[in-house]
Amino acid sequence: MESVNRYINQNSTRFVAQLKDWLRIPSISTDSRYKAEVARAGEFIAGDLREMGFKVETVPTAGHPIVYAEWLGAAGQPTALVYGHYDVQPPDPLDQWVSGPFEPAERNGNLYARGATDDKGQLLTHVKSVEAWLKTEGRLPINVKFLIEGEEECGSTNLESFIRSNRERLRCDCVVVSDTSQFAPGLPAITYGLKGLVYFEVVLQGPKQDLHSGMFGGSVANPANNLATIIAELRDSRGRVQLPGFYDEVVPLADWERKQFAELPFDEAKFREFVGLEKLVGEEGYTTVERKWARPTCDVNGMTSGYQGEGAKTIIPARASAKISFRLVPNQDPAKIVASFREFVASRCWPGVRNEVRQFGATPAVLVSVDSPSMQAAVRAVEAGFGRKPVFIREGGSIPVVGTFKRELGVDTLLLGWGQNDDNLHSPNEKFSLADFHRGVRASACLWEELARSTMK
Amino acid sequence: MESVNRYINQNSTRFVAQLKDWLRIPSISTDSRYKAEVARAGEFIAGDLREMGFKVETVPTAGHPIVYAEWLGAAGQPTALVYGHYDVQPPDPLDQWVSGPFEPAERNGNLYARGATDDKGQLLTHVKSVEAWLKTEGRLPINVKFLIEGEEECGSTNLESFIRSNRERLRCDCVVVSDTSQFAPGLPAITYGLKGLVYFEVVLQGPKQDLHSGMFGGSVANPANNLATIIAELRDSRGRVQLPGFYDEVVPLADWERKQFAELPFDEAKFREFVGLEKLVGEEGYTTVERKWARPTCDVNGMTSGYQGEGAKTIIPARASAKISFRLVPNQDPAKIVASFREFVASRCWPGVRNEVRQFGATPAVLVSVDSPSMQAAVRAVEAGFGRKPVFIREGGSIPVVGTFKRELGVDTLLLGWGQNDDNLHSPNEKFSLADFHRGVRASACLWEELARSTMK
Repeated sequence: MESVNRYINQNSTRFVAQLKDWLRIPSISTDSRYKAEVARAGEFIAGDLREMGFKVETVPTAGHPIVYAEWLGAAGQPTALVYGHYDVQPPDPLDQWVSGPFEPAERNGNLYARGATDDKGQLLTHVKSVEAWLKTEGRLPINVKFLIEGEEECGSTNLESFIRSNRERLRCDCVVVSDTSQFAPGLPAITYGLKGLVYFEVVLQGPKQDLHSGMFGGSVANPANNLATIIAELRDSRGRVQLPGFYDEVVPLADWERKQFAELPFDEAKFREFVGLEKLVGEEGYTTVERKWARPTCDVNGMTSGYQGEGAKTIIPARASAKISFRLVPNQDPAKIVASFREFVASRCWPGVRNEVRQFGATPAVLVSVDSPSMQAAVRAVEAGFGRKPVFIREGGSIPVVGTFKRELGVDTLLLGWGQNDDNLHSPNEKFSLADFHRGVRASACLWEELARSTMK
Repeated sequence: MESVNRYINQNSTRFVAQLKDWLRIPSISTDSRYKAEVARAGEFIAGDLREMGFKVETVPTAGHPIVYAEWLGAAGQPTALVYGHYDVQPPDPLDQWVSGPFEPAERNGNLYARGATDDKGQLLTHVKSVEAWLKTEGRLPINVKFLIEGEEECGSTNLESFIRSNRERLRCDCVVVSDTSQFAPGLPAITYGLKGLVYFEVVLQGPKQDLHSGMFGGSVANPANNLATIIAELRDSRGRVQLPGFYDEVVPLADWERKQFAELPFDEAKFREFVGLEKLVGEEGYTTVERKWARPTCDVNGMTSGYQGEGAKTIIPARASAKISFRLVPNQDPAKIVASFREFVASRCWPGVRNEVRQFGATPAVLVSVDSPSMQAAVRAVEAGFGRKPVFIREGGSIPVVGTFKRELGVDTLLLGWGQNDDNLHSPNEKFSLADFHRGVRASACLWEELARSTMK
């Protein structure tokens, strides 16, 4: 490890220069005008891996290519699969960037550019750590595979089918993903839980056209009033969901989790200021952190009906619709909740009102054991790289691919986030701390060694 | 009356020709490009009244002019004030008109043009009836005043202040308005009740910006869910309003009203087909006609929040708003309901959520005695003109100026509608039955005589 770490220290400036070169490529996957740039960004990382000795294939898809790379020289050792993505979010609004989104600039120890943390910068830590091993020791302590897609920011349309049809090739003992955040600056974290998600659009159709609310009011069902009633009955004012059986399979928070969450330096006043609310509210019996990370929720994401312009228009709208989503926790079954929700809506439609429930995705929650050998190896690696033992955190968001790895490959994912919560991913002035970048490379280099020593396999 | 009726019969073709000339003027009051045309339409009717002996003044306002005309030669006799409007709705969508909106065309006994029934055609019946009296008898049986505005289709912005500052000049014993409909072809009607209206826009502000529903779900109040709850609690599924005290002052339907409504040839199957609903629903214990005409209602007119595009966007919206209106019946007090609604909303906002309630108008309901001498005179006049005794009907809509006349001048309004429910007012192919036009002129001519004979004053 000593020579590996020396290599990392000696090459840190070159690593940053290389990251900058990669960030200069505007690989905006959702915008078809950038198709060639997206491909170029994929080739950039494919070429680098090939150069250091990986066997690399750039696999065309109906959308952007998938880069697959493997180094399988550690016979008898376990295998890790690193997942990441080389595409980026669009940079709009451009006028809010202090420096150009594709002109990487260093300020106050941060590197500013679109993709700096999400995900080029974070992913590159693993590429540079394997380079350090291969250039110094000529080998890796374990077998390492890379699965790098170019469609993460536009729905990962072709990823799941690729994984499904390449189960053998992708076989591994654990997945490593660095696309999340630390708990706070100086407080590294490993994310061991993600929420699941089911998302619906509910459309209620009342009269065949908007009606005069004076001439028809009181005599026909108003789909907007009906929809409001359905939404109101879905949860109580504290957020407790009223779908029958909704909480039946919920795994309660363990004592150690509640204890550790409570010890985190979570500043509720700062949080209130950030969201711009004088008071917070949520499910009774839980703290704000517990609600955010570990309790299932139901939220209206959007609502539309009738007249939305200025002033008054006196109509009974013909239709009303809402986007409604549920965040799930282990072990809630998305399919059960989809069925329960459809029944809930249909049974609450007023006479004459027809309903349509469109479903957008159903992702189960993820909960990884913090006691597994691979997780304990990751803890040691993060501590080595960041100089402090990581805390275990959960996240309210969903990363669908983690569920796919579990389902298709039967393995857990180590979510080793090197970012910070204020890194402005998906916003102007995205950044990545250069210190965190270097720490990430060191932690990653250590991870291969720790996984080799562990009893993971 | 005989010579008057003879004059009417002999001049009927000319009356229609004159109506067509008036309809050719595109007096679209809401579109500033038509300002000169609106003024020309006002001058058209002002000139006609002046020519036949009325004292006419065209009063400029901040918007379109008000035409005021009076003939006060019936000393000792009562005074009627005819209210109408010379402006029209925009004709869009143009491609759905069979003949041009401002090229009046006769088809199947109807005259098609924008304004044919609303309100040029209906108003002209009263102008032609006073012409018939003046040209044959040289006098009117009573004093008649005309108040004709050019802003009815764009909010009557300057009408109320005009009435308030001209109380003396406008003094009268009753108001006559022909801007409504008969119950059905061959079934003339007098509208003796109108609903009132209070209209609100409720805006709930949650977090200061849209938040990621995964990272923040469960920890902050969602204003869209909160709004849905407020709307849901406003009324039950049958439409019974839950505002405290809402029904306290409601005047129950009289036995004669329920009996007469029940006898009307209202075809519920046809109604269902028209609105496109397989089932109707409304307040328990009332028929569809009773609900439409005589029961107070609460309807969402529009609703907007968060993401409304295609697919899924997982946000907690920063704000949610809804247009919500109540149709009122006698003797509900709009001011009381406004206060009650504001309190209802404010008391149901979740922690952190701020609310704003914007109010657009507050019009009380109108109920005119059907036994008054003027109403009985109108019944006889309509029967003379249409050959059948009119039925008494109410309407779910509101005509705010009727409340203004009651409040400012202390008089009731006779709503003598010559139109039909399928006249397409505010829609393409607006029409007016020429037979109804002629019957309206005859009924109006008779009305002046009947009012003179009555003990109205």
